[in-house]
Order: sequence, then C-alpha cells, then structure tokens
Amino acid sequence: MDWVHNSRMDCCVFCGVSLDGFIAREDGRIDWLDEMRERFPPGEDAGFAAFYEHVDAIVMGRGTYESVAAFPEWPFDRRVIVLSRSEIEAVHPQVEVSSEAPKELVERLREEGLSKVYVDGGKVIHSFLQEGLIDQITLTILPIVIGSGRPWTGVLPGDVKRALMDSRTFAFGAVQVRYRVDRF
Amino acid sequence: MDWVHNSRMDCCVFCGVSLDGFIAREDGRIDWLDEMRERFPPGEDAGFAAFYEHVDAIVMGRGTYESVAAFPEWPFDRRVIVLSRSEIEAVHPQVEVSSEAPKELVERLREEGLSKVYVDGGKVIHSFLQEGLIDQITLTILPIVIGSGRPWTGVLPGDVKRALMDSRTFAFGAVQVRYRVDRF
Repeated sequence: MDWVHNSRMDCCVFCGVSLDGFIAREDGRIDWLDEMRERFPPGEDAGFAAFYEHVDAIVMGRGTYESVAAFPEWPFDRRVIVLSRSEIEAVHPQVEVSSEAPKELVERLREEGLSKVYVDGGKVIHSFLQEGLIDQITLTILPIVIGSGRPWTGVLPGDVKRALMDSRTFAFGAVQVRYRVDRF
Repeated sequence: MDWVHNSRMDCCVFCGVSLDGFIAREDGRIDWLDEMRERFPPGEDAGFAAFYEHVDAIVMGRGTYESVAAFPEWPFDRRVIVLSRSEIEAVHPQVEVSSEAPKELVERLREEGLSKVYVDGGKVIHSFLQEGLIDQITLTILPIVIGSGRPWTGVLPGDVKRALMDSRTFAFGAVQVRYRVDRF
C-alpha cells in the first residue's frame, strides 16, 4: 500500500529583516545582519534549526544561489531548486535547476508529496507572494534601521492579509513574528 | 525658586505600519489601516491613550496637518507644531507653525522644558531620524502586506541601531514593538 500524501504543502518564508523591512542593502550586502547576529548568544539560532528540520526542499532564485554557492562550503543538506531561465552549473548534487513558473513548480512539488518548502531570496519570495503561494511567513525583526535596501517583498496585485500565529522576543532585541497566509 | 527642568526630552514616534513597513499607500490612503482597526475589540487603542497622556506637544509636517485639519473635529487637545516653510492657516488655537529645522525646534522645546514630543507623519519622522533626533519608536505592526506605499522612514545617513524596550501581541493579530534609539 502506498502512503496517501496529505495534499497540504506549505511554502514558508523565514528571514531576518531590518526594522524598516529590508533583507539586504541595495548592493546586496548583509553586513548589518552579520553585525546583529553577533548579538545572538552562543547556540541561539532564532528557531532556524526547528524551522529547517521538516523542510523538504529549498527554492531560491539565481542571485541567492550564486551568493550561497560562493560560500566556502555548501550549507544545505537537502534538495535545492534554483528558479532560473538560464543554465546554471550545479555546485552540489542536490541542486536542481528549473525554469518553471512558481505555480507550476508548487503544483509539481505538491504532487511529489512534499509537505514543507522553504522559499528564500527577495525576488523569489516576491514572485511567490504575487501569485498567492506563500503559506507561512516568519520574520525575525532586528533592532536596526538601515534606511534603504532590498525589501523582503515588493509590489503586489492586492493586499495580503495574514493571521498572526505567534510572536516572541529575544533578549538581544529581536522580535520574531509568524503568520499564516491564506491563499487568495 | 524656578523649577529645574530635567534636561531630558524624548521625541517619540507612535505609528501603525503594514508588515512591509508602510504607513499609507502611495497616494496617502489608509483604507487598509482603517480596515485593520475594525479588528480591534471595542475600547482597544493599542496603547495610544497611555502614550498620548504625557505628550506635551505634537510635531507634524504640512501634509499630515492638512489631513488632520480636514477631519470633522480637531482631534488634539494640546500644542501642535506644524513644520512648514510656507504660511499655514491654523484651524485651532493650539496650532503653531514653525519654519525651524528639526534640530532647532528640538533645542527650543527642550529649553522650554518639554519632556515628551510626539513626532508624526512619514516625512517629519524621516527628517528627525536623519538628524538622530528620535528617542523612542513604537510601531504597531498590522497583519497585512500592502506591497507598496509610503514607508515609515526613508534613506538615512547611516544605520540606526536600537534597543528593544518591549513588545506585545494583540489577540487581533497586531504586534507592537517599542525601541529606544540612542542619539548618534
């Protein structure tokens, strides 16, 4: 007997943002985020490991992929799907490249039986939000205003209302908020 | 004997923002904010009355003043200082118009012995932040992404780091965060 997959698949965002809503400076630098991370006590990951534990696949754009591929070591130990219309050299056997539209990809992954997809990188988050494909958003709001940069989202076809699931405060000054987004 | 004024004066921001950091749509509409306010239970003001109680004066720009002046009734019962380089007709005896730069105004109000100034409106908040004049920021983060609009702040000469004072969650889905900003 085959397992019957729960047809529910959640596309989740988990990112650190400045208090003015940016994930990086205009030029992509995250020096401010690294500086904020230094305030985390040893071993504190703001819930990332718990979030990541049940992730089946990570979806990112080419820009994010190229940043990650430049790390000394490939940081992920599961499927990574890079959305790109151009050819990309996969630096790790678990990297797949896809030119699918977000909706097609989500449909395919749901049919494959995945239950949790981690959507990362400003452009991909934005395109998923535009299509109403983001189910859960966790933002770790860091106590810094950087004034300008790359927003965690962008222009949308309409408002997206969310339900707050929970929030928590870290002693080092971050506030984490988690929302469920209903598909519209 | 004269009273010796405590030389400390706090310039405070208290505003509602979308989860993507906007205080109004591009055209100034706040229909989304009004819609969110409808979720507040009767009598819930998200701490505004407690914040406002000790406010000595409100500082705003001409745009905000004109919006407020168009209300059926003037909503404030204390000094309102409108920062404007052009002439403005005061609709209420407690309205003063000033062409001072933010720093000059803050110096003057401190010398007058004020202890708490409420700085309101995106442009004025931004100019005060640019000059390092904001001491306390309270943001009520509403559970909605509007995609574009007028940000609660803007480009700054440098990062502004803050210390989280407290945060709280409202059952209707808002999260309120309060920061102290050290002058830079």
